[in-house]
Amino acid sequence: MHSPGLHNHTVTVACCQVAPKLADVAYNQQLSERAIRDAAQAGAQIIVLPELVQSGYVFVDKAQAQQLAETTEGATLQLWHRLAKELDVLIVGGFCERGETQQLYNSAALIDRSGVLGVYRKAHLWDAEGQVFSAGDAPPMLIKTVHGVLAVMICYDLEFPEWVRLPALAGADLLCAPVNWPDGPRPQGERPAEIIRVQANASVNRLFIAVCDRAGTERGVDWVGGSVIVDADGYPLTPSLRQANAAEGLLLATINLAQARDKRVSANNDIHQDRRPELYATGQV
Amino acid sequence: MHSPGLHNHTVTVACCQVAPKLADVAYNQQLSERAIRDAAQAGAQIIVLPELVQSGYVFVDKAQAQQLAETTEGATLQLWHRLAKELDVLIVGGFCERGETQQLYNSAALIDRSGVLGVYRKAHLWDAEGQVFSAGDAPPMLIKTVHGVLAVMICYDLEFPEWVRLPALAGADLLCAPVNWPDGPRPQGERPAEIIRVQANASVNRLFIAVCDRAGTERGVDWVGGSVIVDADGYPLTPSLRQANAAEGLLLATINLAQARDKRVSANNDIHQDRRPELYATGQV
Repeated sequence: MHSPGLHNHTVTVACCQVAPKLADVAYNQQLSERAIRDAAQAGAQIIVLPELVQSGYVFVDKAQAQQLAETTEGATLQLWHRLAKELDVLIVGGFCERGETQQLYNSAALIDRSGVLGVYRKAHLWDAEGQVFSAGDAPPMLIKTVHGVLAVMICYDLEFPEWVRLPALAGADLLCAPVNWPDGPRPQGERPAEIIRVQANASVNRLFIAVCDRAGTERGVDWVGGSVIVDADGYPLTPSLRQANAAEGLLLATINLAQARDKRVSANNDIHQDRRPELYATGQV
Repeated sequence: MHSPGLHNHTVTVACCQVAPKLADVAYNQQLSERAIRDAAQAGAQIIVLPELVQSGYVFVDKAQAQQLAETTEGATLQLWHRLAKELDVLIVGGFCERGETQQLYNSAALIDRSGVLGVYRKAHLWDAEGQVFSAGDAPPMLIKTVHGVLAVMICYDLEFPEWVRLPALAGADLLCAPVNWPDGPRPQGERPAEIIRVQANASVNRLFIAVCDRAGTERGVDWVGGSVIVDADGYPLTPSLRQANAAEGLLLATINLAQARDKRVSANNDIHQDRRPELYATGQV
C-alpha cells in the first residue's frame, strides 16, 4: 500500500477543539465553519473536528438524536465539502448519521475537495451510546490522499489496540480520531490515561495520531479537553489545551508522514515485522 | 480462571532496580540476594528482578553468553529458591537459560517456596539478541499463586499489545516484567515511551504491571532506569528512580489485586467484553 514519493512529505495537521451545543445544528455548523477557516488560515491541510461536533453528545434520548441525525447527503457534510473545496483542505469530522434503514451511527466523515471520501461508523460504543446508536461493523477505512494514507476511528475505539493495528498494518500514515473524552478523576500531575493510550498506540505502530477532543460542558458532563497530535515515536507534538479547563483552541503540527513508513526501532528491529501473529492466534494461554 | 476469595486481597510488590555486572555471576547472585532480602525486609511478598540479572546483558559474543548460561537447575535459581523458602516470597527474575538442546534463551523464572513454578522464554527479541538467543514460542505463562494469578513477560514483549492481551484475557491479575530498557533520546520533560506503553497495556486490560528495569552502565549502554508498578487504571503507584541517573533502588507498592478482576470502565462498559474479535480477525482492511 506504500505510495512512492512520500519522502520528506510534510503536511500541516490541525485539531479544532471546539464546544458544540447539544441539539443546535445551525450553531454547530457555524462553529465548525469558523474553526475550519481559522485552521486553514493558519496553514492546516488536514483538519480534524471532534466526535459528534454536528449534533452534540449527551442526548436526552434516542428521539432527540433521531431529530438531529443527517445522512451523508445532509447539510453539514455539504457545508464541509464546500469548505474543503474552497480552502483545498481535508476535513475529518464527527456527525450523528442516519443510515440507510434509519438506524443511527456515531460516524465520522473524511472529506476533500472532491467530496466525501469515506464515512467511518464507530465500532466500540461507550456507555449509553448503545441506547442511541448501532455499532459499526467495518474496520477503520483507509484512504489514500494527496497527503498520504489516512485512517479514521472514534474515541473509545482507541482503547482497543487490535483496532488500531488494522489500519496501521495496512499502511496508514496518520490516524485521525474525533473524540469526546468525558473527564474523570486521576492522580495529581498525571497526564490523562486517554492520552497515554494514544501515545502507546502511536509508538507501537510508528504511526502519527491526531486526536480532536471537544471543549465546554454539556448537561453536566465535562471533557478532558485532551486534543493532541502525537508523532511516530509516541510523543506529543502539540501543547496541551487542558490547562484552560478544556478550553476551545486550535492545535497545529507540521509532520513528516514519511517517518510513519519507517517501522525500524533498532538496527535489527521492525516494530511490525517483529510481530508473531501465529502465537497471538492461540487465543487462550 | 477467577479464584474465589480474592476480594480486597492486598499484596506488596517490589521491583529491585539493581546494576548487575556483565559476566560476573557470583557478584550478581550476591546482588540479587541482597536485593531480595532488602525487599522482603521491607514487606514485599512478590519480588521482581531485572531481565538477565544473573548474567548481565551486553554480551561480547555468543560464546560469552554460553559460558554464563544456566539451566533451571543451576546455582542462581537454586539460590532464589532457597531465599523464596526462607523469606516466604515469590521471586521473578531474569537469567540466561541453557535449554535442553544447548540453545540459549532470554528467560525469567517465577519461583516460590515450593520451587520453580514456571520459566518464560522471551518471544520478541531485541536488536542483537537474535545473535545469542533463540526466541521462545510459548505464550506468557499464567500461574495461580496464593497472591492471585501472575503472568511473566520480558522487555520488548511489552511492545506488542497482542502479547499482553493473552494473559490478560486468560485472567492474569498482575504481570511481572523484568526488563533492560536501553536509554535513548526523548523530548525534554516527557516520560519515556517505554513506561507510557506499560501504562497503556495496564489500562486497556485493567491489569497491574510491575516492571523491573536495571541500573548502571554496561559496555557503553545506559538504561532508562524506568522501573514502575502501574495500577489497573494505568497510573504509576511508585515514584521514579530515574532522577538519580537510573540509580539502584527499591520500589514498593501494596496493591489490591481484586481491582484487576473488575473490568468495568463505565456503567455499561467492560473493557474486555467490549472487544470485537470477529472484526479484528479480518487481518487486512
